[in-house]
Amino acid sequence: MGSPAVVGVGITDFGRFPQRSLKDLCAEAVTAAVSDAGIDVGDIGLAAVSNSYAGLLTGQESVRAQTVLAPLGIRGIQAYSVENACASGSTAFQHAVRAVASGEVRYALALGVEKMVVDDKSKTFAALGSSRDLEEDLGSSGSPFMELYAEEVKAHMNAYGSTAEDFAMVAVKNHLNGSLNPHAQFRNRVTVEEVLHSPMVVPPLSRLMCSPIGDGAAAVLVGRAEEHRAAPRVLASVLRSGAFAPTEDVNDTTLAAQEAYDKAGVSPDEVDVAEVHDAATPAEIIACEDLGFAPRGGGVALLRDGVTSLHGRLPVNPSGGLKARGHPVGATGVAMVVEISLQLRGQCGPRQRHDARIGLVQNNGGWVRGAPAAAAVHLLARA
Amino acid sequence: MGSPAVVGVGITDFGRFPQRSLKDLCAEAVTAAVSDAGIDVGDIGLAAVSNSYAGLLTGQESVRAQTVLAPLGIRGIQAYSVENACASGSTAFQHAVRAVASGEVRYALALGVEKMVVDDKSKTFAALGSSRDLEEDLGSSGSPFMELYAEEVKAHMNAYGSTAEDFAMVAVKNHLNGSLNPHAQFRNRVTVEEVLHSPMVVPPLSRLMCSPIGDGAAAVLVGRAEEHRAAPRVLASVLRSGAFAPTEDVNDTTLAAQEAYDKAGVSPDEVDVAEVHDAATPAEIIACEDLGFAPRGGGVALLRDGVTSLHGRLPVNPSGGLKARGHPVGATGVAMVVEISLQLRGQCGPRQRHDARIGLVQNNGGWVRGAPAAAAVHLLARA
Repeated sequence: MGSPAVVGVGITDFGRFPQRSLKDLCAEAVTAAVSDAGIDVGDIGLAAVSNSYAGLLTGQESVRAQTVLAPLGIRGIQAYSVENACASGSTAFQHAVRAVASGEVRYALALGVEKMVVDDKSKTFAALGSSRDLEEDLGSSGSPFMELYAEEVKAHMNAYGSTAEDFAMVAVKNHLNGSLNPHAQFRNRVTVEEVLHSPMVVPPLSRLMCSPIGDGAAAVLVGRAEEHRAAPRVLASVLRSGAFAPTEDVNDTTLAAQEAYDKAGVSPDEVDVAEVHDAATPAEIIACEDLGFAPRGGGVALLRDGVTSLHGRLPVNPSGGLKARGHPVGATGVAMVVEISLQLRGQCGPRQRHDARIGLVQNNGGWVRGAPAAAAVHLLARA
Repeated sequence: MGSPAVVGVGITDFGRFPQRSLKDLCAEAVTAAVSDAGIDVGDIGLAAVSNSYAGLLTGQESVRAQTVLAPLGIRGIQAYSVENACASGSTAFQHAVRAVASGEVRYALALGVEKMVVDDKSKTFAALGSSRDLEEDLGSSGSPFMELYAEEVKAHMNAYGSTAEDFAMVAVKNHLNGSLNPHAQFRNRVTVEEVLHSPMVVPPLSRLMCSPIGDGAAAVLVGRAEEHRAAPRVLASVLRSGAFAPTEDVNDTTLAAQEAYDKAGVSPDEVDVAEVHDAATPAEIIACEDLGFAPRGGGVALLRDGVTSLHGRLPVNPSGGLKARGHPVGATGVAMVVEISLQLRGQCGPRQRHDARIGLVQNNGGWVRGAPAAAAVHLLARA
C-alpha cells in the first residue's frame, strides 16, 4: 500500500495544431512528467490513457493506449484506454491513484490526449455530439452541449438573478488567467463588452462564454508519498456516473464532492485553489455552488466579490480553465490535476495562489438521461 | 478487502443480430448476471464496460458505458468505458476484480458488448483494422489480423511440423463444442475436409479456421467469496500490454501466465479447463504452448492425443471458443470468464469438464510494433 501523491506532471501547449499527432503530443507530455518525477519510463507499472474521440477523428478506434505508449518504450505493463467523455482524464487519474494506493504498482501514469482539430469540422461536432446518448432526442443544434448548458443557465438566472454580464465576467477572469499560462490556448485578455457582443451560440451563451475546440496532452505520474516527500498528496479521488433523478441541490457533483470531502477530512472552506469544469462559463458559477464554496445561488457573489479571482481567497481556474487554457476533451481532467499540483508546489509564477495548501479538481462529462454522465472530484494537499 | 469471486454471470446468444442494439444485448446479459448472483443492480458499486468498435460502427464514440447502463438503472456509481482491442473484456474483468479485492466496492460489474454486424461490411473491417497502429504499414489485406496470424503460423509449421490438418482439427473440435453450447454462434459440426476446403483467407488459413464477425454481450459480477460460498474464486488476473522485443519463447502471454501461476500458486498441469484466444485456430495450439500446457512445439500433440478435447484431461475452449461460440470483440474476454465460471460450477451440461477445479482464461488483443498489444491471463478455482 502507498499514500498516493502526484510525483510528476507534464503538459503540452493547448491549441490548434493540425500538424501534431496524438503520438507527438503524448511524447511531449509524458517525457516532461517522467523528467519532472525523476524516474525512468521503466518504473511505470500501469498506464491509463484517456481519449474520447480518436476513433471518429483519426480512425484509431482501438489500442489507442498502446499506439501512443509504444514509441515511448512504455511496454509490458498494464495499459489500456479509458473513456468517460469530458471526465475521461479524471477517470484515468482515479485509476492511477487506485493502482498506487492498493500497492499494486509503484508508479502509475494517467495520460490524457485529444486531437479535435481535423480537416472536416463536422467530424469534430459529430464526435462531441457522441458524448450523449445518440438515441435520445436532444434537439438539432450543431452545439448540443451548449444547448444543454443554456437550459441549465436559464434556470439559474431565473432562480438567482445571475446575468449574462456575470457569465462574461467569468470569461474575462479566465482569459486573464490564461494570459499568464504559457500553455493556454487563449492568452489574449477580453472585456465584458467583447464577450457579450461575440456571436451568439445558444442564448444566453455567446461564443466567448464557450470553451474552444483544441488539441493537447497532459500526463500525471502517481507514486508513493513516502518516496516523494515534496509531492502533493492525493487526499481523495471520487467518480460518479449518472445519478438517478438529480435535483438542483443534489446531483453527481454535489455527491462526489461530499464523498471527497468526507474521505479527505477537508471542508469546502479549506480549499485554497480549484480547477472546475467551465465548458461554458456559467458552469463555473454553478460548480462553485455544487462544491459548497457558496450556498446555492451564491456563486455569483463569489465572482463579483473577486473571491475566485487570481488574488482572491479561492482562485478558480487559475490555469485559464476550459475556457482559456483550452479543452481537448481527453486531456482536460489530467490537465486540471497538473495545474493544481503545480499550484500546491508553488510553481505557477504570476498565476500562483499564495500559500496554497489544499487544491480541488472538479470535472464532469457527457449527458445521459437528463444529467451529466460522469462527475469527478479530486482533493490534493501540499506535501 | 475481499477475496474476489465470480458471483454471477450472464451471456446472450452470439451471432448476427442486425435488429439488436448494444443496449438490448447488454440488458439481457446484465439482467441474467444480476439474477444469477441474487443481488440487486443497486448493489453494484463499479461498472467497467468493454467495447471496441461502437465509435466507428454505431457512432456512439463516447459515454458507451453510461448509455448501456442507464436503462438498467445502474447509475450514480463509478462507471466508465475501457478498451484494449480483443482483450477489452479481460481488462474490464481485471478492473472488477481489483475493485473488489481492494475493498473499494462490494460488487463490481464487468460488461462486454460488441455489435459488429452493420449494413456496410467495409466499416466492420475498418474497425477491426484499427486494432493495430494505423501508422504502421502491415500490408493491404482486408483481413490484416489474419495476415499476421498467418505469418506466426508459418513459423510454427516450419519449426515444429504443425500442419493445416492440425489447424482444421482445432476447428472440428471447437465446432463440436459449440454444437453443445446454446449461446454459440456456430452450432454446426464440421469435418477436417470441410475446413481445409473452405475458401482460403490467407494461406494457410481457410475461412473455417478463422473466428467469425458477430454480435453479443457478456456480463460478470465480481463479489466477495466470503459472502458467496459457492462462487468460483479469482486466484489471479494479470494483464500485460506490448512487451518489448518478444521472442518465440518469451512473449506477453508467457509472461502474464507465469505471473498468474505465481500469484495463484498453481502450476500449468493443475489446470483442468481453459478458454484460450483462438481468433484463428492455430493460435489455440500456440497458446497451449505459451501457457505451459505443453513444451514449445508440443501443442499439436495435445490436440492429436485428444487431451484438449471435451473429454480429454484438459478441455480447451469447451464453449466453442472464438471460432464457434463467436468473437464479438468487446464481449469475448468476459464471455471466456462466463464459460470458465460455469465449468467450475459444474453447470455446463453436455460440454462439462468432469470435476473441474482450476480454470484458466487467456485472451489477447491488438497488434502494435510486432507483438500483441495486450495479453491477459486469469486463473479461477472452484469454491
